[in-house]
Amino acid sequence: MQRPSARTADQLRDITLEAGVSLHAEGSCLARFGNTHVLCTASVEDRVPSFLRNTGKGWVTAEYGMLPRSTHSRTDREAARGKQGGRTLEIQRLIGRALRSVTDLTALGEHQIKLDCDVIQADGGTRTAAITGAWVALRIACEKLLLSGAISRQPMSDQVAALSCGVWQGMAVADLDYAEDSTAEVDANFVLSADRGLVEIQATGEDRPFTRTELNQMLDLADAGCGQLFEMQMKAVRGSF
Amino acid sequence: MQRPSARTADQLRDITLEAGVSLHAEGSCLARFGNTHVLCTASVEDRVPSFLRNTGKGWVTAEYGMLPRSTHSRTDREAARGKQGGRTLEIQRLIGRALRSVTDLTALGEHQIKLDCDVIQADGGTRTAAITGAWVALRIACEKLLLSGAISRQPMSDQVAALSCGVWQGMAVADLDYAEDSTAEVDANFVLSADRGLVEIQATGEDRPFTRTELNQMLDLADAGCGQLFEMQMKAVRGSF
Amino acid sequence: MQRPSARTADQLRDITLEAGVSLHAEGSCLARFGNTHVLCTASVEDRVPSFLRNTGKGWVTAEYGMLPRSTHSRTDREAARGKQGGRTLEIQRLIGRALRSVTDLTALGEHQIKLDCDVIQADGGTRTAAITGAWVALRIACEKLLLSGAISRQPMSDQVAALSCGVWQGMAVADLDYAEDSTAEVDANFVLSADRGLVEIQATGEDRPFTRTELNQMLDLADAGCGQLFEMQMKAVRGSF
Amino acid sequence: MQRPSARTADQLRDITLEAGVSLHAEGSCLARFGNTHVLCTASVEDRVPSFLRNTGKGWVTAEYGMLPRSTHSRTDREAARGKQGGRTLEIQRLIGRALRSVTDLTALGEHQIKLDCDVIQADGGTRTAAITGAWVALRIACEKLLLSGAISRQPMSDQVAALSCGVWQGMAVADLDYAEDSTAEVDANFVLSADRGLVEIQATGEDRPFTRTELNQMLDLADAGCGQLFEMQMKAVRGSF
Amino acid sequence: MQRPSARTADQLRDITLEAGVSLHAEGSCLARFGNTHVLCTASVEDRVPSFLRNTGKGWVTAEYGMLPRSTHSRTDREAARGKQGGRTLEIQRLIGRALRSVTDLTALGEHQIKLDCDVIQADGGTRTAAITGAWVALRIACEKLLLSGAISRQPMSDQVAALSCGVWQGMAVADLDYAEDSTAEVDANFVLSADRGLVEIQATGEDRPFTRTELNQMLDLADAGCGQLFEMQMKAVRGSF
Amino acid sequence: MQRPSARTADQLRDITLEAGVSLHAEGSCLARFGNTHVLCTASVEDRVPSFLRNTGKGWVTAEYGMLPRSTHSRTDREAARGKQGGRTLEIQRLIGRALRSVTDLTALGEHQIKLDCDVIQADGGTRTAAITGAWVALRIACEKLLLSGAISRQPMSDQVAALSCGVWQGMAVADLDYAEDSTAEVDANFVLSADRGLVEIQATGEDRPFTRTELNQMLDLADAGCGQLFEMQMKAVRGSF
Repeated sequence: MQRPSARTADQLRDITLEAGVSLHAEGSCLARFGNTHVLCTASVEDRVPSFLRNTGKGWVTAEYGMLPRSTHSRTDREAARGKQGGRTLEIQRLIGRALRSVTDLTALGEHQIKLDCDVIQADGGTRTAAITGAWVALRIACEKLLLSGAISRQPMSDQVAALSCGVWQGMAVADLDYAEDSTAEVDANFVLSADRGLVEIQATGEDRPFTRTELNQMLDLADAGCGQLFEMQMKAVRGSF
Repeated sequence: MQRPSARTADQLRDITLEAGVSLHAEGSCLARFGNTHVLCTASVEDRVPSFLRNTGKGWVTAEYGMLPRSTHSRTDREAARGKQGGRTLEIQRLIGRALRSVTDLTALGEHQIKLDCDVIQADGGTRTAAITGAWVALRIACEKLLLSGAISRQPMSDQVAALSCGVWQGMAVADLDYAEDSTAEVDANFVLSADRGLVEIQATGEDRPFTRTELNQMLDLADAGCGQLFEMQMKAVRGSF
Repeated sequence: MQRPSARTADQLRDITLEAGVSLHAEGSCLARFGNTHVLCTASVEDRVPSFLRNTGKGWVTAEYGMLPRSTHSRTDREAARGKQGGRTLEIQRLIGRALRSVTDLTALGEHQIKLDCDVIQADGGTRTAAITGAWVALRIACEKLLLSGAISRQPMSDQVAALSCGVWQGMAVADLDYAEDSTAEVDANFVLSADRGLVEIQATGEDRPFTRTELNQMLDLADAGCGQLFEMQMKAVRGSF
Repeated sequence: MQRPSARTADQLRDITLEAGVSLHAEGSCLARFGNTHVLCTASVEDRVPSFLRNTGKGWVTAEYGMLPRSTHSRTDREAARGKQGGRTLEIQRLIGRALRSVTDLTALGEHQIKLDCDVIQADGGTRTAAITGAWVALRIACEKLLLSGAISRQPMSDQVAALSCGVWQGMAVADLDYAEDSTAEVDANFVLSADRGLVEIQATGEDRPFTRTELNQMLDLADAGCGQLFEMQMKAVRGSF
Repeated sequence: MQRPSARTADQLRDITLEAGVSLHAEGSCLARFGNTHVLCTASVEDRVPSFLRNTGKGWVTAEYGMLPRSTHSRTDREAARGKQGGRTLEIQRLIGRALRSVTDLTALGEHQIKLDCDVIQADGGTRTAAITGAWVALRIACEKLLLSGAISRQPMSDQVAALSCGVWQGMAVADLDYAEDSTAEVDANFVLSADRGLVEIQATGEDRPFTRTELNQMLDLADAGCGQLFEMQMKAVRGSF
Repeated sequence: MQRPSARTADQLRDITLEAGVSLHAEGSCLARFGNTHVLCTASVEDRVPSFLRNTGKGWVTAEYGMLPRSTHSRTDREAARGKQGGRTLEIQRLIGRALRSVTDLTALGEHQIKLDCDVIQADGGTRTAAITGAWVALRIACEKLLLSGAISRQPMSDQVAALSCGVWQGMAVADLDYAEDSTAEVDANFVLSADRGLVEIQATGEDRPFTRTELNQMLDLADAGCGQLFEMQMKAVRGSF
């Protein structure tokens, strides 16, 4: 049975990671996973949250948002509603955790880096695109801190990338677009480190419970797919200097 | 190496699921996992959210809260701060998803059941205790709807229970208390159905990425532990009629 | 004419004040007035509000909340609505005032004690049960401060207890439950000190204005009822050491 | 001992109730109690809150506010802070209860009357001035409904007026200004009906508990003082037609 | 064609600027433009916003509000809705800008002056009345700072006054009341300095675009009208000392 | 004296209006004024605000936002702060008014079109770029409604475009970038219709009052600049069909 996107089970969408797209940000990356476009910027600040003051340690945090018409039908603007929804908070907590897991906060010194991941256009997999792109922006910002002498060693201890996988019509598939995601029986997001360690797994049986076999098939897809993403990330970072 | 709680790796805490603890609620269960105590109540309403009106279908949703001094040091009251935090929203979304995954919303008719899971005392694993107890409260509320003739067939298609597992000092362990949870390298929550299907996995490498082997060890622990919880759930339900 | 609860006019419900119910709080008391159950915890903090900084004085304040299904039909969660209602604010201001009236803030030193009064189950008279139980929690917390040497003299200068009274079918009655409260013509709350001084009176003619004679009858009932509460309070405090 | 205001214990401040001060409102009254000035307007609406729809009954409610510089030092604007404080909510609930206690909601038909009580200048006793003035505004609005034929009988079944009393230096005194109020040992607000029935009592021992004798002395003062207010109210109403 | 108000095109309403109307404020002015009544108070504070701390400079800012029944039909209270609307924020930003444009913030030293402009009654032109009256309140507050020796030179470098003008039935008219404003084709607000410099222009074609000729006619009206306002301002200031 | 941008006084930045940039929106335009990039999308809804229901008329409204790192230093996310600031509300009200001034709401029928103007990158003049681009998005959305037969005649009665002008070092200049804007003495925004009618003027003397002569010079610049914008708008619309 063919996927709605006509891709093979392990085939990723056309993916580009374009660094240096922002005039002002210390690091930036426009991550395009097919029609999903997420603008990731890294902003370096000289002050850390109060719980870290005078500890010599830094902090990395993330915020996530969607433009109102990034979605198929318009979504109300969270600023106008007066609060961020549960899904938004959940995603930005995930992005922050993922990035901190590969950051040496002591090497960062008392700097805070905020990653803003804003979805310009959505077609499934925005959170995994955000993590993948935010790593590029963060890495570039760290390089600049190093180059400027503000810090003396690289705080990024590893790479992280993320991929959404799922079970669609009984078949494990990688990098679902919206049409696939909304009809999948199982929906999962995997965050991996460059050596294929598992940083975070979020897997949900939307229609029915899933099996360990299905989990393992999805893990295999995430493993292979993130391998491609890690290469693209390094290429984007290198290309920006 | 011995766990802080002196339990074996697969040993659960003293767990009780006490049904019928609320004077007013249609279903209720006080779930005690050691010193973690979560009061779960099910409230049946005759009206559904607007997106389900006139569809003949019902809805199940959950809210989660912690009493300010359920925690080791006092946590600010969310009602006083004027909003629910990201962790709260994330947990209540998880509880709702887990319960809906085993509810036949058509059999429920146009009723909404709200599960309130309030942490009276916290010592690790509140979200998994909440899911496990909320299923009992929900099932009892459904039984009452059946007995009263408001619905004609059982909406609960299966059981769900949940367990937190982790990797502590390199050892996979089940049902972590706070002292273990705060020093674990890997932290995971598993929601399972009675036939051991996977309903939801949330696994995070807190200190370092984790391996597939560790994931499988934790899955084994969750499998065995939830087996015990399923029995306690049925006993609590049966004892309340 | 017989009260709905079949009690005599001056007869209180079955009342228990159970101290030491919280694992974490510096002081705690579960106040049960019949089916009304209020969990009161005292949390000691080393810092005072800014208006008291460097004055050598402490502060005592209270917060009040109801679990959503503590009530007959479910009440929306204040944290979800994004603000505390007028009734909640009014009650917590009352609890704080009552407790501060018997606290020597100078003897307390620069500590703040927060009393959280959470209604686990409601059946009338929650605010008076809260005051009565909160005093127990506060006193225990102060004893612990004394025992630890953090302060050198007892800050609690007196006891306070509170009782709801009303006029039901023309008869002054004490300690109304919900069935009585909702059909009473006059509704009043009295806060008394151990020597029967009046700390606070809130009296409302719900259906009609009331007379001074009725006010005096209710004052007599409050006087006698609080006498019983003061003994229970001391027994609960003594039993917890 | 002489009161700061040099008045006798039972002497009220210079009080004027000026009706018809608002170009737009259906009823209005500027209540001046010495330097305390409260503008009260009554706004009639043709729709009632949803819980009264199709019951044939109306509703009376109140809102209270203080201009930022009505107070000695500037108070932050509640609209700017984004919420009404506990004191504000408490006062507006009191005003609403007091007015509803003398309104026949069935005679009012399905109209809602909102009383806005805005403190233009504050010098103690704003809530009692607000109740006294709001009754005038409400009565005038009701007269207009009668004159227009929108309703067929008078909904105001009685008058209500309110007075603050207190114990200052051991002496019961009436109508405290700010200088007296802030140094009083006991602070009380009394709402009375025209036949001297008690509609609401709020009495607080600020510095120390108070006695029944003191309560009775304050009740006597409130009785006499409200007698004068009832006459002023009727004169203000009559003068506006 | 005659204006609804029967005034000539350049004729202002009956305008009075009454200084010293507030017991507590350091400066105050009740600005009456016909039936539009705006109470302006100036509150002096010894601390400045954080961005000015230790710069030796002061700040002037404004807040604007409308009493709920200042308007023809009742407007919901912003404090009750929990936020200030866009119109309110726009107006108070305008008032603050206008006043700061004629204040020497260095001469003001590290003081902040807050201008509260509260509309007691509205009949068109509230923002221009607010600016005109707020200048008087601000100037008086500055005089008091000078007299008290808190500052050593006058911070007010110039006067500002404001007037609303419009095009009504093709005719440029000054100082529109509500009946005119709501039927005008073009609506404009002009803020001028005493030498007729333009401080701010806000002009909107409500029904249709407008021409430069119309703009010039309105500018002429504003010029002449503000001339009268400047005289009234100085008279109000002088009369208050 | 040369402008910081080295442009002549009347020279606009490199401007492009790129239509059709959004996969989902009914109309879209990415307006680039030099380094200022604003994404404008038009979303058509079948329901109108309640005040227009059953009137046969439609509505056009706008929302404005800035990505957190669109600015030189990072700006806090309004969704995270829980409210839209005064500047944001002011700008979106301006955009909505400008577009409605050239829309025949009756021809639009009972449709609402929401224009979202999101600043991807800011370098001065975002509001004028937003108006200019939003018109393109709106016009395209209207064309689609016509083509689909949902409406039968063109609701856009005219074009609107907007340009910021200012006085910089005594010289009137057009289309200021951020470096110019932040050092200009006078700052103005002009919204014009295609026949050069004035739709809205907002002009502020930042440093000093300005003269009529300066106003006229800026009007001349706006006139000429908008002429170029009108052509680009039509080209963008035509190119998208």
